[in-house]
Amino acid sequence: MLALRVNKQNLTVEQAAKPDNPYEVLVRVVLSGICNTDLEIARGYAGFKGTIGHEFVGVVEDGDLAGQRVVGEINAGCGKCELCRAGDPRHCAARTVLGIVGRDGAHAEFLQLPAVNLIPVPENIPDEHAVFTEPLAAACGILERAAITPQDRVAVIGDGKLGLLCAQVVALTGAPVLLVGKHSDKLQIAARRGIETATPDEAAKRRREFDIVIEASGAAAGFKLALDLLRPQGKLVLKSTFHGSTEIDAARIVVDEISIIGSRCGRFQPALDLLQQQAIDVENLISEEHSLANGVHAMDRARASGILKVLLRP
Amino acid sequence: MLALRVNKQNLTVEQAAKPDNPYEVLVRVVLSGICNTDLEIARGYAGFKGTIGHEFVGVVEDGDLAGQRVVGEINAGCGKCELCRAGDPRHCAARTVLGIVGRDGAHAEFLQLPAVNLIPVPENIPDEHAVFTEPLAAACGILERAAITPQDRVAVIGDGKLGLLCAQVVALTGAPVLLVGKHSDKLQIAARRGIETATPDEAAKRRREFDIVIEASGAAAGFKLALDLLRPQGKLVLKSTFHGSTEIDAARIVVDEISIIGSRCGRFQPALDLLQQQAIDVENLISEEHSLANGVHAMDRARASGILKVLLRP
Repeated sequence: MLALRVNKQNLTVEQAAKPDNPYEVLVRVVLSGICNTDLEIARGYAGFKGTIGHEFVGVVEDGDLAGQRVVGEINAGCGKCELCRAGDPRHCAARTVLGIVGRDGAHAEFLQLPAVNLIPVPENIPDEHAVFTEPLAAACGILERAAITPQDRVAVIGDGKLGLLCAQVVALTGAPVLLVGKHSDKLQIAARRGIETATPDEAAKRRREFDIVIEASGAAAGFKLALDLLRPQGKLVLKSTFHGSTEIDAARIVVDEISIIGSRCGRFQPALDLLQQQAIDVENLISEEHSLANGVHAMDRARASGILKVLLRP
Repeated sequence: MLALRVNKQNLTVEQAAKPDNPYEVLVRVVLSGICNTDLEIARGYAGFKGTIGHEFVGVVEDGDLAGQRVVGEINAGCGKCELCRAGDPRHCAARTVLGIVGRDGAHAEFLQLPAVNLIPVPENIPDEHAVFTEPLAAACGILERAAITPQDRVAVIGDGKLGLLCAQVVALTGAPVLLVGKHSDKLQIAARRGIETATPDEAAKRRREFDIVIEASGAAAGFKLALDLLRPQGKLVLKSTFHGSTEIDAARIVVDEISIIGSRCGRFQPALDLLQQQAIDVENLISEEHSLANGVHAMDRARASGILKVLLRP
């Protein structure tokens, strides 16, 4: 089968063996989405080797679910540790992660996951929306980590795919949201949903005005702006995996009693519910679709300025 | 009156004018305690100029409270902003802070504070214990910022004055506490209260074992160890004001969904209650007492290895 694979920063579409673990379920990939994490992995982040990609919608090929359209939780736990037994393998120390840690991913004709990871997709969600389940779940994960009420003033830093999903999810809580970004066309997507927008320079004038700031830009400047916008005892939700280390002013975190809250993956069901209700605009986040055979070019496109989600079709 | 004053890293005991703000209450200082923040201010931290010191017990000289023994909340707010009106001036943007920000401090014969900042000291608390109210309140402040239950496994990094107070306060919640430090004589003070202790090397073997880690060492190595000890989704309470900036591995905070929670000042009443109940060993934290006239020498002593609290008596 065809697969988009990385090996020591060498990215190629190549023939790979179809996965054949008898204890897992085979899924034929219908669409996959390119995430910024894919771009980072292709640059060597996490030392991953194999098929990349973790956002997908597909159809089950075998077993009880055969023929069922599914999306899949990307963390596969050991099943035995305290966390796995409590039903949450997302932090299992021995976990594999689809296309990220120790497990071939979704930019391929087929993938495998444990049956427990697969979730049926309601009929009224088109493939092009269902493929957003994983990043939308990540945005919903913010609410697992930080309670947000309509009384909270929230800023989201970054108008990329993740920032646009985060801003829309948070806006559904009833809290007023300011999305901060540099690209007027991207900001427009949020503005059409009634979300206030600002450039970083405009936002910088609103120091200490926000109860919660969500950093989704992945840039050190975004982190600094986030701290500037927070009120004392405010919460900074770190949503982007920065490369390497970041300088923080620890004294300021202590003196202003800031909380910095890391947030990674979210649960899929709330995201599917939102997609079914058409509560989130994902349609306008799609910039381009390419065939899997053109995967290397598609990755270049995903890296280009002004581009949001790039989809791959096997 | 005599006062221990700093001016551009020049530290002297000198004659200063007795404070005479008619809108504040005059307090004759009975004892004051040297805090690590005093040592940092003397090295130029926060650019403070004037009389240092913020830990004290004294006797009111004038007004309704005349003759009353008191301790004092160190933050004096503007009284008009949202935070002040809500009864918590600790984060008022226009606040002054005793001996730290815009207000002469406690290493002097007299000080002044607004009447609302002063809290009577119960008779059965000796001066030598009451002078610990402010740092003990700071330790109690952890519980305002992070709920701790008997089910939480807690580590405290740093066996200095602050770490010893934090470990004792947290142990009172019923949670098992590990105090990590390099000085066996200091660790002994906690061990006598039934608190488990370890050297940093011993603690480093217990990776991902703790739900909550309190960083009270003020050292970059302590911050790193704290992250190592935390389980995924654990909480790191930052209690020490580090100098300058610290490198953090932001990706790790996101991937392991860590929370970093800044904690500074606490409320005084819970600390006075604990001192009245003799629930905290502060007696063994006193290393030396010096006269205010010998304040410069006392500051040198407070900086010396192996020394805990140094008290000054005007």
